Amino acid sequence: MTPVSIYPVPGLPEIGRGAPLATLILDGVKRLGMSLEAGDVVVITQKVVSKVEGRVRRLDAVQPSERAREIASRIAYDPRHVEVILWESVRIVREAPRVLITETRHGFVCANAGVDRSNSGGVELVVLLPERPDESARQLREAFVAASGVQVGVVISDSFGRPWREGQVNVAIGAAGVTALRDYRGKRDPDGYELQGTELGVVDELASAAELVMGKLDRVPIALIRGASVSGEGRVRDLLRDPATDLFR
Amino acid sequence: MTPVSIYPVPGLPEIGRGAPLATLILDGVKRLGMSLEAGDVVVITQKVVSKVEGRVRRLDAVQPSERAREIASRIAYDPRHVEVILWESVRIVREAPRVLITETRHGFVCANAGVDRSNSGGVELVVLLPERPDESARQLREAFVAASGVQVGVVISDSFGRPWREGQVNVAIGAAGVTALRDYRGKRDPDGYELQGTELGVVDELASAAELVMGKLDRVPIALIRGASVSGEGRVRDLLRDPATDLFR
Repeated sequence: MTPVSIYPVPGLPEIGRGAPLATLILDGVKRLGMSLEAGDVVVITQKVVSKVEGRVRRLDAVQPSERAREIASRIAYDPRHVEVILWESVRIVREAPRVLITETRHGFVCANAGVDRSNSGGVELVVLLPERPDESARQLREAFVAASGVQVGVVISDSFGRPWREGQVNVAIGAAGVTALRDYRGKRDPDGYELQGTELGVVDELASAAELVMGKLDRVPIALIRGASVSGEGRVRDLLRDPATDLFR
Repeated sequence: MTPVSIYPVPGLPEIGRGAPLATLILDGVKRLGMSLEAGDVVVITQKVVSKVEGRVRRLDAVQPSERAREIASRIAYDPRHVEVILWESVRIVREAPRVLITETRHGFVCANAGVDRSNSGGVELVVLLPERPDESARQLREAFVAASGVQVGVVISDSFGRPWREGQVNVAIGAAGVTALRDYRGKRDPDGYELQGTELGVVDELASAAELVMGKLDRVPIALIRGASVSGEGRVRDLLRDPATDLFR
């Protein structure tokens, strides 16, 4: 039986704005002695995509607003960092000492609106999430398909915390060419019982699987997943729950 | 570079109370033409572990309490199912039409306290979570180590919904012989910026990765993960957030 295999794609250089990301990733795949095959999924950490898209800000150029200074004082945070988080957010979901959980303009609920100071390229720099991550994934996918001639999927991942459990897990923030949700509703189990409310967030499971070969400090920002049978037309946007039906917002 | 590989372990028969689960899994691994190697992780869906442990109840033998009937009437649910959910719960976290999210006796926050009517073995049967899933994992691990002579890990998984995103994902409910949390706190990124609050819920990522080969309807309840470098002494219990510091309970 063919396994699902996850390869770390090594040797990506430090990435700057406008870098030819798809080409660099294909070079990395070649260094593995491999080439893309139909059904492969390339998982890319958000940070490299954001850097290529110029979504980096210098904190020393940020003028914190009165509101940012108030929040920063309450939660013991850098007010300039809070200011950038507020730019990226449509609402604050929870606030606590050293914790700021917001809903981003995309509709993600996560710490700091995804605005991250680690692995940013400098201590005074922050990296923001891509503006339209599904679209970023779509463009990367097009570049891969054009270069390789085969249909592949792309997932852009970030590590988010979650309620009730310690530890962040990698989730998808953008996707193209893959199934986002696998829907079992209306199907029946072998005893004839209808599977109710059962949808699987496959695109997030791909992101989590990829993290197993990435590692935070080793900076392996790319993984190649082979054999997962997840081709599709899903987007991460489709998986964001309507705030009106959300019980935790 | 060696990939992380995930194999579906096929051919497990319908499992009943007291079935020799470790032996059946080892037989399945043998049918793959493989044998366990040091560092392998065996991921097992909760339902087979619960069935082996006799954690199955007949709904027609359940007498719903007044409280169960009230809740069932409000959320349009079977009052007998609600009664079993209440047995398994220490508190109700959210209630909505056809939704009951509780905190289980173990400390998990999930729908229906994990009491599931699908794939239960009969339409009038429900399957409860194992009473002590970390201990169940420890016992299975001991059996694997005794039979194979190599150090392996075990993860017991279940699919949980989550706030803010549609789609369930597989998470760990019990573990032995693996890292549960990988801790980057206090470490520094290449720019010298200290990684704050960064822990990764590796054991949940293993569970999610395994789901990619399982599938809800095909009943492949076992996956073998090879090459993940996650040996450790973690338990899922250690990853449950203290309710006192939880912002969403």
